[in-house]
Amino acid sequence: MNIGILGTGMVGETLGTKLDSLGHRVKMGSRTANNEKAAVWVKKNGDNASLGTFADAAKFGEIIINCTKGEVSLSALKLAGEDNLKGKVIIDVSNPLDFSKGMPPTLTVSNTDSMGEQIQKNYPTAKVVKTFNTMSCLIMVNPRSLSGSHVIFQCGNDSGAKDKVRDLLKSFGWSDDEIFDLGDITASRGCEMVLPLWLRIMGALKSGAFNFNIVR
Amino acid sequence: MNIGILGTGMVGETLGTKLDSLGHRVKMGSRTANNEKAAVWVKKNGDNASLGTFADAAKFGEIIINCTKGEVSLSALKLAGEDNLKGKVIIDVSNPLDFSKGMPPTLTVSNTDSMGEQIQKNYPTAKVVKTFNTMSCLIMVNPRSLSGSHVIFQCGNDSGAKDKVRDLLKSFGWSDDEIFDLGDITASRGCEMVLPLWLRIMGALKSGAFNFNIVR
Repeated sequence: MNIGILGTGMVGETLGTKLDSLGHRVKMGSRTANNEKAAVWVKKNGDNASLGTFADAAKFGEIIINCTKGEVSLSALKLAGEDNLKGKVIIDVSNPLDFSKGMPPTLTVSNTDSMGEQIQKNYPTAKVVKTFNTMSCLIMVNPRSLSGSHVIFQCGNDSGAKDKVRDLLKSFGWSDDEIFDLGDITASRGCEMVLPLWLRIMGALKSGAFNFNIVR
Repeated sequence: MNIGILGTGMVGETLGTKLDSLGHRVKMGSRTANNEKAAVWVKKNGDNASLGTFADAAKFGEIIINCTKGEVSLSALKLAGEDNLKGKVIIDVSNPLDFSKGMPPTLTVSNTDSMGEQIQKNYPTAKVVKTFNTMSCLIMVNPRSLSGSHVIFQCGNDSGAKDKVRDLLKSFGWSDDEIFDLGDITASRGCEMVLPLWLRIMGALKSGAFNFNIVR
């Protein structure tokens, strides 16, 4: 599949590398066409890996993965261009963390709204699926690195899009019963508002190598 | 131990019944001295169970457990009286849920503050420990009703108070490694902001009989 990744940070790189290793064609997009980190990543990943602007990556992808920081996600998507996003699946991995007021970060949007919902509102024909954002990117692409079962949440308004994302997650090593569907995109609020707890757990464990499980 | 419970809802009753069954003397406090639900509870629970006003319960308890709804917790504690709370351990179970704008509820305080922190600020000599609030009350008092390990978070500024709460949790059936210390009382933010996710999970499972675990 052709996949466009927005954002050249650790999350974008990690997901891009995993997707490349699974045989997908991946274009990594950033503000400039020749982002240095994206260029290094392309060199490491061979023929199916490419780089370009946010618009190039969005145009290229059947699926778009938003790996930009939450605070710049809307501006990145604006640069990606409405036409390039029309009708497409957008996987939103972003967390709207605000580090500007010191630690711990607060959320730029929460409680009555969320980044996932804002993206869906801004691009109503796109099929936004919120997932991945509740764990370290090393766990996203290697769920079996933890001992035992744990969960990855997904939510969105389009069940076909969620099925596509489910298939992608399964190809990453997630088992079907670990993929927890929370319903429509308003559940993004819950996915994003768990970040303050996640950060405290990371602080206590001094490691991001953990994830939530739901025990019944 | 003498324990004062503030709030006669399902959470207060369930915790009170468990504490009574473990041999503690429990006074259930409410706005009025003769709350009907508290009276019924006392009849069911025998000689060690009693009822009274918020002030009566707070005066009685070596440990106070705030089981009032988050939206009225501060006013309930005001009625309990500063003198009756002085230097005591306050276990804060409250969730600042606002149902007034319909479902799903939002939080009356979040992101930059929390109910646990507000209580600690209002009663600086009290030792506030936030715990219990991330699960159904049936799980609080019967952790072994779920299959496998799961976690209960606690946070607070006073390590002695947290040790006391830990002992109480262990007497409820929680194992030592299931009691997850998140640090100081500012972690209440994380504990309370997980509620929107918790509510969506409950909606998807159509049951509150679940809890979070941390998988490493």
